[in-house]
Order: sequence, then C-alpha cells, then structure tokens
Amino acid sequence: MKKERIAVAYSGGLDTSVIVKWFQETRNADVITVTGDLGQTKEIVGVKEKALATGALCAYVIDLKEVFATQFIFSALKAGALYEHTYPMATALGRPLLAQTLIEIALEENCTAIAHGCTGKGNDQVRFEVAAAALAPSIKVIAPLREWEFKSREEEIAYCHKHNIPVQATKSNPYSIDENMWGTSIECGILEDPTVPPPEDAYQRTVSPANAPLDPAIVKINFHEGIPVALNNKSVSSAELIMTLNEMGGKNGIGRIDLIENRVIGIKSREIYEAPAAVILHFAHIELERLTLDKETMRKKQKVSIDYADIIYNGTWFSPLRHALDAFINETQKVVNGASENSLYDTKLATYTNEDSFDHNASEGFIKIFSLPYKTFYSVNKRQLPK
Amino acid sequence: MKKERIAVAYSGGLDTSVIVKWFQETRNADVITVTGDLGQTKEIVGVKEKALATGALCAYVIDLKEVFATQFIFSALKAGALYEHTYPMATALGRPLLAQTLIEIALEENCTAIAHGCTGKGNDQVRFEVAAAALAPSIKVIAPLREWEFKSREEEIAYCHKHNIPVQATKSNPYSIDENMWGTSIECGILEDPTVPPPEDAYQRTVSPANAPLDPAIVKINFHEGIPVALNNKSVSSAELIMTLNEMGGKNGIGRIDLIENRVIGIKSREIYEAPAAVILHFAHIELERLTLDKETMRKKQKVSIDYADIIYNGTWFSPLRHALDAFINETQKVVNGASENSLYDTKLATYTNEDSFDHNASEGFIKIFSLPYKTFYSVNKRQLPK
Amino acid sequence: MKKERIAVAYSGGLDTSVIVKWFQETRNADVITVTGDLGQTKEIVGVKEKALATGALCAYVIDLKEVFATQFIFSALKAGALYEHTYPMATALGRPLLAQTLIEIALEENCTAIAHGCTGKGNDQVRFEVAAAALAPSIKVIAPLREWEFKSREEEIAYCHKHNIPVQATKSNPYSIDENMWGTSIECGILEDPTVPPPEDAYQRTVSPANAPLDPAIVKINFHEGIPVALNNKSVSSAELIMTLNEMGGKNGIGRIDLIENRVIGIKSREIYEAPAAVILHFAHIELERLTLDKETMRKKQKVSIDYADIIYNGTWFSPLRHALDAFINETQKVVNGASENSLYDTKLATYTNEDSFDHNASEGFIKIFSLPYKTFYSVNKRQLPK
Amino acid sequence: MKKERIAVAYSGGLDTSVIVKWFQETRNADVITVTGDLGQTKEIVGVKEKALATGALCAYVIDLKEVFATQFIFSALKAGALYEHTYPMATALGRPLLAQTLIEIALEENCTAIAHGCTGKGNDQVRFEVAAAALAPSIKVIAPLREWEFKSREEEIAYCHKHNIPVQATKSNPYSIDENMWGTSIECGILEDPTVPPPEDAYQRTVSPANAPLDPAIVKINFHEGIPVALNNKSVSSAELIMTLNEMGGKNGIGRIDLIENRVIGIKSREIYEAPAAVILHFAHIELERLTLDKETMRKKQKVSIDYADIIYNGTWFSPLRHALDAFINETQKVVNGASENSLYDTKLATYTNEDSFDHNASEGFIKIFSLPYKTFYSVNKRQLPK
Repeated sequence: MKKERIAVAYSGGLDTSVIVKWFQETRNADVITVTGDLGQTKEIVGVKEKALATGALCAYVIDLKEVFATQFIFSALKAGALYEHTYPMATALGRPLLAQTLIEIALEENCTAIAHGCTGKGNDQVRFEVAAAALAPSIKVIAPLREWEFKSREEEIAYCHKHNIPVQATKSNPYSIDENMWGTSIECGILEDPTVPPPEDAYQRTVSPANAPLDPAIVKINFHEGIPVALNNKSVSSAELIMTLNEMGGKNGIGRIDLIENRVIGIKSREIYEAPAAVILHFAHIELERLTLDKETMRKKQKVSIDYADIIYNGTWFSPLRHALDAFINETQKVVNGASENSLYDTKLATYTNEDSFDHNASEGFIKIFSLPYKTFYSVNKRQLPK
Repeated sequence: MKKERIAVAYSGGLDTSVIVKWFQETRNADVITVTGDLGQTKEIVGVKEKALATGALCAYVIDLKEVFATQFIFSALKAGALYEHTYPMATALGRPLLAQTLIEIALEENCTAIAHGCTGKGNDQVRFEVAAAALAPSIKVIAPLREWEFKSREEEIAYCHKHNIPVQATKSNPYSIDENMWGTSIECGILEDPTVPPPEDAYQRTVSPANAPLDPAIVKINFHEGIPVALNNKSVSSAELIMTLNEMGGKNGIGRIDLIENRVIGIKSREIYEAPAAVILHFAHIELERLTLDKETMRKKQKVSIDYADIIYNGTWFSPLRHALDAFINETQKVVNGASENSLYDTKLATYTNEDSFDHNASEGFIKIFSLPYKTFYSVNKRQLPK
Repeated sequence: MKKERIAVAYSGGLDTSVIVKWFQETRNADVITVTGDLGQTKEIVGVKEKALATGALCAYVIDLKEVFATQFIFSALKAGALYEHTYPMATALGRPLLAQTLIEIALEENCTAIAHGCTGKGNDQVRFEVAAAALAPSIKVIAPLREWEFKSREEEIAYCHKHNIPVQATKSNPYSIDENMWGTSIECGILEDPTVPPPEDAYQRTVSPANAPLDPAIVKINFHEGIPVALNNKSVSSAELIMTLNEMGGKNGIGRIDLIENRVIGIKSREIYEAPAAVILHFAHIELERLTLDKETMRKKQKVSIDYADIIYNGTWFSPLRHALDAFINETQKVVNGASENSLYDTKLATYTNEDSFDHNASEGFIKIFSLPYKTFYSVNKRQLPK
Repeated sequence: MKKERIAVAYSGGLDTSVIVKWFQETRNADVITVTGDLGQTKEIVGVKEKALATGALCAYVIDLKEVFATQFIFSALKAGALYEHTYPMATALGRPLLAQTLIEIALEENCTAIAHGCTGKGNDQVRFEVAAAALAPSIKVIAPLREWEFKSREEEIAYCHKHNIPVQATKSNPYSIDENMWGTSIECGILEDPTVPPPEDAYQRTVSPANAPLDPAIVKINFHEGIPVALNNKSVSSAELIMTLNEMGGKNGIGRIDLIENRVIGIKSREIYEAPAAVILHFAHIELERLTLDKETMRKKQKVSIDYADIIYNGTWFSPLRHALDAFINETQKVVNGASENSLYDTKLATYTNEDSFDHNASEGFIKIFSLPYKTFYSVNKRQLPK
C-alpha cells in the first residue's frame, strides 16, 4: 500500500519538528516540509538540514520575500489596513501566503494532507484552514497541536530527545515570537498580564523611544499608485525598501505597539508588536492620501480600511469580498502618487490672503440649503432647546 | 420706529469689534454682544468693557466651561470622534454651544437677528448657521464678513481708528488662532504652504517633543461610563480635569497635530492644532474600550466614530442623527468604567499555559463552518490559484 | 443520588417528544417541558397533557404572545429588520424569547441542563445556544439531534411506538413548518429544489394573489413612536393587532415570500415564508418614516436595518450591540407618529406653483460649493472624458 | 467682436424653447442646441426642425440609447441602485449622460457656456452642474430658470407668441413629465398633495395592476456578469431588451411607484414613477445574486447599493468615488451569470434528507466559539435578565 504523504508547514521550531516525527511514528507517513522565507531574520539558516535530519522525505525552503511584499503587504498598505486601528498584521498577512505555498507544493507532490503547527486557540489555525478550504477544498488539513498527546513544552522536548531531534540547548525564550519583514509578534509569559508594562527584553528589533537619538532621521519615500517605490529617490526592491525602513525605524524607537486585541475566536488577547517599517509606511501613505484623495473617497475608504483589516485578521484573505475590496482600493490609489502632481491642495482656494480665488458669496446659498433639513425637522418637531 | 436689535457673537478681536460698530453705522442697530468662556486662556479679560466702549448696548460674558466639557467635549470623547482620525475638534465643538448661547440671549433680548464674525470660506459659518436654522428657524443670521466692504485687515484697522475702537497696538500675530480648553487651532501665514514644517513659534501651549523631559510623567485617569471623573483617584470638575491635563501634556510635548484636512465646503486646508488633554483623554478612553467592549460593539463603534466626527465637523450638532448616535454611544459606554471590574480580558482564556480554560477542540468545528462559504464559492467558481 | 433535571424546549412534535423519553431512558433524568405560546395556531392545545403522558415531571405552557409582540416583534419592526431585505424573521425572533423563558424556568426548577430539538445544520441551534451563553453561562445545553442514534424520522416513530408515545396517525406533512404570529416558515421536500416554484399546498395561511379579491381592502394603522397602536383608530392589544392583520392580509394574497437565503452556518437555503401582518406593518412603517425622518437619519437607519436583521437572524439577540442599536433606533422613532403632526413634507417647499417658499437663488451657491471637490479632483488629475 | 456661443440642452419643450430665443435676445448669443435620445417615446420627432425654427444656429440630435443602456443603466443595475430602496432613477441616470454629451459638443463647437432648463429647486440642476464642474471646469454654466424674468408658464407662452416660437396648442398637461427608456417621472399638480392617491390619468405607460391580465406573463432573462444579455435565450441589444421589458411589464401592471423622497437640496418631495423594465430587471438581478454571491460579499454590497444610489441621485456620477465603487461592483459581478453554473446553492448541503453532506458535529464547536464573546460579556457585566 502506498504511504500517506503529508506536507507540513515547517519553521524548524519545537512544535513543527515534533510534528515531522510524530507523523512518521503515528501514521507511518512520508513528510514533506515547506518553509517560506518572509524576511524573518532568524530560523531560515539550517532549516532544510534540520528537516531532513528529523526524517522529512524532502524539504522545501522558498524565498517568498518579494511576493510577500508586493502582493500581500502592499495590498494591506494601500487599504490602510490596521487591525483595530493599530496592528499592521505581519503574522496575519504571512499566513495565507504560507498556506498557499504549502498547498501548491502539496498538490505537486501528490500529498493527500497538509498540516500546520498552530494551536487550537489562536488566530493562525483559522487563517491556515480558511485558505485551504478556498484553494484546495478536497485536501485534508491536520492540526496536530489540537489533537496530539503532548501536554507541555517539556513533554515535546522529551519526545525530541527520545527521537534524536535536534533541539536548541539554550534556555527557552520566555516569550513566543513570530517574525517576518512586516513585523514581530511577541506574546506569552509575563505579557499575558495586561496590567504589567512589557519588560524591555520583550522587544527584539527596536530601541526604546527614550533611548532613541534626539536628532530626527529623515527619509523621503516615493509612492506610485499607493505603493512605495523608492527611498530618497533611489529605486529599491520592495523587500529591500521594507527592510531598510525596519532598520532605520528600529534605531529611532519607532514601531512598538502594546495592544489588547479581539482574537478571531472571541477572546481578548494582549500582544506586543514591533513593526518599524509598517508604522512608517502606513503613516506616509495616509498623509499622501490626505493630499490626493477627495473627501468622499477618503471617507468611504476609512470604513473599507476597517473591513479590510478584519478580512486579513480573520483569515479570509482568499475570499471574493477581499478581491472586490481590492478592486475598489486599487481604483482609489491611481492618484496616490508621491510627488505633488496629484495634490488637491490648492493654495489659492485655501488661503485667507488676497490671492483668494474662492467665491465667498456661494457660501450663503450653500449653507441655506445645507441647513434646510434641520430647519424643517426642528420646526416641525418643536423640540425644546437641548439641555 | 423701534431700532433693530442684533445679538453679536463677540470675541473682542478685530473682526467682531468692527462688526459692533458697523451695525450701528450702517443699520442704526442696537447691538448686544455675547461672549462665551470656553476655557480659552486669552481674550476674556476686559472683553465686556471693550464691547461697551465700542458702543454695544449691553455685553454678556458667560462662563460655559463646565457645560462645554460635560455636554459637548465628553460626548465627542465617548464617541471617539477625531476628524479624519486625527483632529479632536476644539473649535468645531465650541461653535454650536456659542451659537446656542447667542440664540438664547437673542430670544430673551428680543433681537430679530444674530451675527457672527466667520468668513465665507471657513467651516465656522456653517456650524453657526446650521445651529441657528435648527434652534431658531425664524431668526435672521447676518455674516458681515461675507458682505461688507472691507477688503483687508488694514482697512478694518483704519475703520477702528476712525471710530475710536480700541485695537491692540502690538504687531499682529502672523497666524490666525482660535482657542478653548479642548485645543488651539493655528492657521494662515506660512502655514498655508503644506510643504513647510510649522515654525516653532506657531505653537502656543506645547513644548516640542524634542525638548520635553525624558522621564515619563504618569497620571491615572478614572472613567465612569466613558467619562473621565478623577485624576489619580481625586475627583475634579470636568473643566479642571481637562485644563490640568492640558498643562501636563503641554509640558511633555503631547498634543501637536499637523494636518491636511477636508473642509466642510470642499477645500483642502492645512491646520496646526495643539490639544494635549484631548490627545491624552482619547488615547486613555480607547485603551479602556479595548478592555471593556465586546468585539462586535467595538467594530460598529469604529464606524460610528467616523460619522460622529463628520457631524461635529460639518456643523450638524443640532440634528436628529446626532441625538440618535448619542443614544447608541451612551448605551455602549455603560461598561466603560475605569477600574477593572468590566474588563473582558480573561487570563484563563487568553493564556497559553496550563491554566487554560478554553475548549481547543471547539476550534475545529468552528473553522469548518466558518470556512464553508469560501470552500463553496471557490469550488463552484473554480478559480485559478491567485497569482 | 439526586436525579439530573433537564428543562426541554417542547413543541409536542415528534422530535421533542422523543427527546423527553430519550432523556429518561439514557440519562435517567427528570424532564421538565417548557412550551411557549407565540401565537401559533396549532400545537398548543393538548400539549401539556401530551408532555405528561410522555413522562415529563412537569409541563409548563406559557402565554408569551404580548411580550413577543411588544418586546421582540416591534423592536424588529422599528428597526426595519428584514433579513436580506426580505424575510421578517418570525422564527428567528421567537427563538431568543423561547430560550429566555426556558432558562428562567430551568433556573427556578434547579435544572442543571436545558435541551432543544434543533438540528445540527439549521439556524435555530445557534440562536438557542447563544442566548443560553449570554443568559446562563454556567448551564449545560444539550442538543440531542446532534448526538443521538436516530438516523431518520421512521426510526424516531418506531421509538415512539415502542415507548407508547402518542404520535399523530396522519400521513406526515411533506414540509417542515414553523409558525408563530409573525409568520410561518415552510421548508423541506420539493422546496429544497430552488428551480421548482412552490406548490400551492405549501402555503398555510394565505391565498394566492391570483385568487385574491380584486377590490382593495383598506385598513388604517395608527403608529406611536414607531409602534402600531390602533387599527382604524381603534386601540387593540399588540398581539390582536398583528393577528387581525394576518387574517386580512392572508385573505388578500399578501405576505408570500420565496427566498434563497444565507444561513448562519454558511449554507444557502431555500425557504418559503408567509407573513401577512409583517409585510403590511413593515410597509406602513417605512412609508411613515419617509414622511417623518430627515434624510441623514433615514440613510443611516437604512444601514442599521441591515445590521439589526443580521443580529436577529444570527441569533445574537442578547448582545450589547443589539442593545446599543435599540437605543439608536428608539431615538429615531420619537417622531414616527401616525398622524401627520410630524410630517416633514412641506407643500410650500415642494411645490412648483406660486406658493413656493424656497429660495431658488441659494441653489447656485449650493451647487458651486457642492461640486467644488469634483472640479478640483478632475482639474488636477486631468482625466479624459469617460468613455 | 465675436458673438458668444452657448450650447443649450434642448428638449423642444416650453422652457428650453424660450431659452433659445432668450439668449439671442438678451445676450445676442449664437445658440447651439443639443438633444439626446435616451429612448423617450415623445418629443424627439421634429425637435431639430423646431430648434432651427426658434433661431438656433445649429441643432444636434444624438442617439444615446445604447450608451445610456450599457454605460449608465447597467452600472446602476449591477450596483442594485434604488434610491431610498425604491426609485430606479431614470431621470437621475440620464442627466450626466446628457451633460457629458452637451459638454463634448460645446467644446467641439468652441462654446464658452452651456445652459440647461432645470429649475432652482429640483435635483437636475445639481446633476448637470456637478457634471460640468468635473468634465469642463472652465466652461460657464447658465441656468436661465434661476435668473430670468418669467414668473409663470403663462408668461413664457406669451413670450413664445411674441417671438413666433411654435408652442403646442393642446391644453397643457396637468403634470410635469420626464421620460426615458429606464422610466417615467411624473410630478406637479394634484400629486403635490401626498395624501391624495395618484389619479389614474397620471400614469403614462402602465395599466393598473387591478386591470392587468390574471395570467402571468413569463420571460426568461439571461445575465452575463450582472448584465442582461438575452430574453428567452435570444440575444438582443441592450436598449431593445429594456424597451421590450417596458412593454411587457407595462401591460401587466408592473412598475408603478408612488414615493415620498428626499431631494438633493433637502426638501421632501412626492414623485410618481413608472419603470416596468427597471423593476423587472432589478428583481431578476437580485434574485440571481442570491444564488451566486457569497454571504459576506452580498452583505457588503447591500450597503454599497445605498451609497451608489445616493451618488446617482445626488448627481456626483463623475466622481472618483463612483469609479472606485464600480470597480468593487464589477469584481462582484464576475459570477453573476444567468445560467446555474455559478450557483452556490448546494442541495447536498441544504437538504434535511439522507443526502446530507454537512458535518453536523462541527456545529457544536462553531457555536461554542461564536457565542464566547457574549458569554464573557454577560458574565463579566452580570446583567439582569432583560425585562
């Protein structure tokens, strides 16, 4: 009988290492590991070797940096998508791309199942499995952490020792960290108590604003149709642009976020994020929109931003609604260009000096009609003056 | 024949001083001035005397600080109302209260008209006149600046000299400034060029963040049903609470805003604001909401905040929609209390430790059903994997 | 040891009859049945006797008609809540009231669990269990139809015969029907094929429009703050008003709905509804709102109606968001009164005759300012004329 | 000196006939008339000759039927745009196309001004002038009816007699009627009293439902990407399709609308409309969307429909927001195809028979997580059971 083939989303960390072996042990399966490079600074080196050493049949490590930047991150940037007005969603944006990559390889490799290392109470399981439902409805998805026998990290480590799986000897980090080029998520440990300020050692890639240089660092970001295309007028690849801004921002104390957020599954959760490039780019992008979008489009887009952030966070990236909102957003971004040729700011209209080209008399008629519904309503309903 | 009686919204500045005299000269009217104290630091002293010296029949100066704080500012705070996600709207919130006060006195004093000193291209004329249309549909509203003969500040000053109206001898401020306890608005002059950073001298009540103390200042704000009621556990009046936070924030470089905004009348405008207390209170309020509101209510309220800010900014404070949104907001705020008794953060649900009380197995069923529509859509429509 | 006590939502139909016995058999439990009278025309008579004959320890039958009308139905009516713009949600509105009643009795009777007869793929299980989660988070909810051994209606009937549970001898209805005073839901059988028009025998309480009298029946409905309070100027109880309109409407071919809808759990479903009173009252209510609400309030309420319908349909009646939306809606309804004293229709403003009191010249100024953003946008962006 | 050249939107009716002559008399201008054929049944025949007889320098009559159908009407249809959930907006959709056509000819003909015959209190002046502001910001727009000396219809007729302008001898219609292929608008006269049912003679193109045949007329409409492309499987041009449905619907009593609506300028107005094709096509289109759109997309589109209708009605057709919403809508319509290949209705999921392929057990987990936020909220806030 043919052996079962399972493609595993593999990070090289403890959980996914155990999964590789556990599938061999408990299901006699062939395991194919898939690791995506989303610009994380750690973990990628040696990951292929480690997967094979743990018994994987083959191990894919795929550079997704540019596709992540251009197709996922910049869609979110153009949308102004900040979850609960704050979180740029590095992890949430990475999951659908990782799921898509895993599925593509699983299909090529004739796997009948895919697996991920997400826990049963987080957001990532949802993002992963919704992507799978959309992209490969007939493939089986296995979430070992929801069903296996291990009750603690210690039990997993013991399992590794028993099966000669390499585990890092270092004292385990008190935090759980996920990282890619759009930001770092830090949780667990003392951070679970929302009344405690995050200890300085929780932060991985930013200095404290208190320790940042007093002199401002200045960078010019050029945008084309809502997308950053150059730094200080010099074209760079999308991934490089983001990583350069991460470094600049991190040194200058930019990008720390301490957030109580609503998880997909209805729990409140406290998360620490570091996202220097994301914070800088969202700020620059919205400032440019203030100059280039008309009022009604900006107002509608403010609300679309909220919906779009929910779509990313809730894991419904692969959905017809996301595609339709992208079409809306892309249309709005045609004028969001970084030089000033699309600026709607008209000094002659805005000024209070003699240069004024605005027709002041029009205001009287405007206000008369603008206020007519209120005049009618209050006249008819004879409300008392409000107290 | 009886003389016409006009109630004038009077600040004591150049424009409204000219108005007082101009009505006497051109219409032979009796003028009653009305000045509201909204917690501005300047202009209130001597304003009554100045009005009378300029020929006003009588001059009202009314302390509106507490009513401004409790009925106007705190409604905006509970609503999370920041215009275009940024501006706390000190000026926009003050206008309807000033208009209401002016109208009440005009009616008591049997005036047949009210007048304001707003220009024909700003927002304030709209706010004033919509309030009048709602509260006193039969009263006439006069906007001298839209119709009189003066073409410049210099012509107005010449008119003052001719009529012995006291004018401040000091060199005129290069900026136009409006101020109350919720913030300061600064415009005109070099600020009209949006490519120029605001000069340091534009700021009136905050130090530059670069010059602020490095050590954090810490203040505890107690909220009751969405309203701040105490500082560091000490009850204070609403106005005092705001003014204390203005002082603290201003010293610490908090509250500077440099904004390109969409005016009511469809122009883009660059404005500088200083609003230390507003920035602190909005931040504290939303952080408390993150702990106390459920996800669906928070999400709906995010969108209501945008609409509510538009209502204030566009001057339709006296409108049935504002009342209905207030009812919505007030219902949501019942649990927004500053101590932790309403926190929805449940450590046992949020934790990844053994304390966990969440049913992990429920996730599988949840995700299966949550993803069903996407599975169906993509299966039916057989879309290619997205490129 | 004390016997387990379970309160069962009991209709007297096949499923809930089996549940009563099944709990005794499989769990040795004491069963308390609770039946709510929501104005359904069938099933209430003899239901208590049947419950006791099936072995229930005690059997509650409670008249909920007036509370259903005033607290549930009229909230939906004021909200303009029609699911997917069409379905008045008789069943969806009844569930939270039935759940609340069941829970209240369960608590009084010291039950440790409640149970319902909803299937695992419908909407009602969600509505029931969300209500329980909100109102009695510690009570256990059992859904026997999701877990028991019976695979078909026939097996359930066999079980009844074995245990001497009375079952109606009549040939089973080809449809599954749920009914209360706000409408009838009809599904299953041939109706599951959406390409087949519903057979005439599917309808329970309306004549076909083709068979309705040609002469119009006329009824005057008086509203007070959005609520119908009288028919033809005669006060009647809320339940009576609804039931009278059901009869009138049914005779006149009003209230048939044939709908493909999105269920809570992500499936598309074809449902037939009959809701004469609901269709009449929603129509009358919205027409009255057209006269009494100002434009901005109406526009916002149109969107709130969509959200409110989702809340009812999805079963989150007991939720802070529903309460907050109710506050909004109730504020808007203060002027929705059935006589004309709140009409905003002003013939002198609307007319094109000489009676005209509208200031036509104001239009020029209004349009100049209203169109300014578009003028600026297109001038700056020099778009070609649209093709 | 060169004579002024003015392009006039010309219908051949009284007002625009007077305008042609009035411009010659009062401004010594050359007048170029532009008449668009939007599928109206009257007025087009002889309109060119009449214009020239009234002194026009040249007279354009342009067939816009197909462009009106495909670029304007079908955009509104795909959007589900019904103003205040009811009015299909025949007139409102025609204005931007007429304005665009007028402007194109005015530019070709080197006119320095355009003029229209709209009154100062209706919607059409706004639609016309916003289009002009967007498409030709430097062209002057003249609205003679807002500024000329004629006070009544009788004065205009006298002017015609004086200047030998042909006027129809027939007794003037008691109603003001505007018509094109998407519908007829009827107002004025007795209709201004909203308490009076419209007299039968107000209707122009539909029989009363009471007089319609009892036997249903059946038509199959084929859609492709949201657009109707064939009747009973026979391809027809867009204009022909609409006009055929107008005839069918009109005979069968379909398409009468009696509406109190909110005008652009803040007045409530009572309008009668007849729109057989529009009513049929909107109904068919939305029913097809029920089968083909997923729930989240449908829900978002319900709200977009409201906004899109406001854009058309308020006359901001030429606006970046309309373009962006079109992009959203067009993306959603890719699956709105008339045969069943895109139907998301899955009998095996929907059924309650043994064919069932739905996983019932997943429901328990789904509901547990779906209800978790409500459980937490009510537990924490210990609300009493709602009264």
